Amino acid sequence: MSKDTNPIPKEIRFAALAVDVVCFRINEGRLEMLVGEIISDNNKYKGQLAHIGGLIKVDETAEQSVDRLLKDKAGLTNVYKEQLYTFSKVDRDPRGRVVSVAYLGFTNKNTSQLENTEVRTEWKSAHDSSKLAYDHNEMTKVGIERLQSKIIYTDIARHLMPEEFTLSELQKVYEVVSGEEMDKRNFRKKMLALGILHDTKRTIKKGVMRPATLYRFKPSK
Amino acid sequence: MSKDTNPIPKEIRFAALAVDVVCFRINEGRLEMLVGEIISDNNKYKGQLAHIGGLIKVDETAEQSVDRLLKDKAGLTNVYKEQLYTFSKVDRDPRGRVVSVAYLGFTNKNTSQLENTEVRTEWKSAHDSSKLAYDHNEMTKVGIERLQSKIIYTDIARHLMPEEFTLSELQKVYEVVSGEEMDKRNFRKKMLALGILHDTKRTIKKGVMRPATLYRFKPSK
Repeated sequence: MSKDTNPIPKEIRFAALAVDVVCFRINEGRLEMLVGEIISDNNKYKGQLAHIGGLIKVDETAEQSVDRLLKDKAGLTNVYKEQLYTFSKVDRDPRGRVVSVAYLGFTNKNTSQLENTEVRTEWKSAHDSSKLAYDHNEMTKVGIERLQSKIIYTDIARHLMPEEFTLSELQKVYEVVSGEEMDKRNFRKKMLALGILHDTKRTIKKGVMRPATLYRFKPSK
Repeated sequence: MSKDTNPIPKEIRFAALAVDVVCFRINEGRLEMLVGEIISDNNKYKGQLAHIGGLIKVDETAEQSVDRLLKDKAGLTNVYKEQLYTFSKVDRDPRGRVVSVAYLGFTNKNTSQLENTEVRTEWKSAHDSSKLAYDHNEMTKVGIERLQSKIIYTDIARHLMPEEFTLSELQKVYEVVSGEEMDKRNFRKKMLALGILHDTKRTIKKGVMRPATLYRFKPSK
């Protein structure tokens, strides 16, 4: 803080800042989100489930805070993330004014229980509408909408896929996210026309089907 | 605040919350942004230009804060706005930790000096890279990128247009935003195929050109 300016007066530092992550993965043909149990004693939501989140520290950015909380609370590292929306309703936290910078997270980890977690975590269907703590159901809704919208015009699906995959596997992910079945030929045509896939020239054979070509996403621009 | 929970301790209410608006309009064939002069005495940026912004009050959401500040500081009402990005760098404000929830704003007002403003405002080219206060040049950059990206796959351009317009006028706006000239026939074909325009069946004649059809945007979904 430079000395030529007065500091922000205490009375306008009235809010606490938090981050929350709507973290998605695709598993067994469904879109899942990571939630954890609230353990803090002074919290009326204790024992309930919420997206992984917590307060931002004085010396860290929102992004750094997300990385720290995903690692400490959920044992997750290397999660691709991007800012989703900042939730600022005055009464969204009963303990006082807490504004939360929400992030979208994407992983392709499919272990059911993550290791070294500070809280009990679980993956549940992103379309499961049972009550989460705070305004986290609203966060889920905004997160799913953003994902559904971005999967159409960006290569965001790359963060939900393993390194190599067949076009059928990729189509399944698009279908799971959009909630709509797609025509196989149209899907192939559209994806290849986008120019975001790299043909590995290798194939994989599963069961009685004829061998399918393996693709990767080209490096992000 | 409910009584069954402890309030947020003072020591974690360390940040002040602000909003800023990267407010765009199209005027005389260029993309312009609204900036205002900083007048606060305890601010090392006093006299410099910045996006319209200010601190969020205890009892208002970020959205309400944006509406209040645009009205009070710049005399602007009925601005279409959407959240852009939350800037949380630790040292972005020399007075202390201030996290800013930035918004995109769009208007089709083209008066040069707005009336009833608390600060001196001006419209400058969005591509003018002279130094703004705080991290506002970065905000401008993020705002332009978002606009350039959204104008392709959404109907966001509606907020920059008058109610009725010709396809040539619309094309001009797309060209100004993208910074690229577009082929007239391709543009017409693409825009009409999107199904977002309503043909008023009326025409307008300018100069020696043949009459051009007037369009409106269909109501937003």
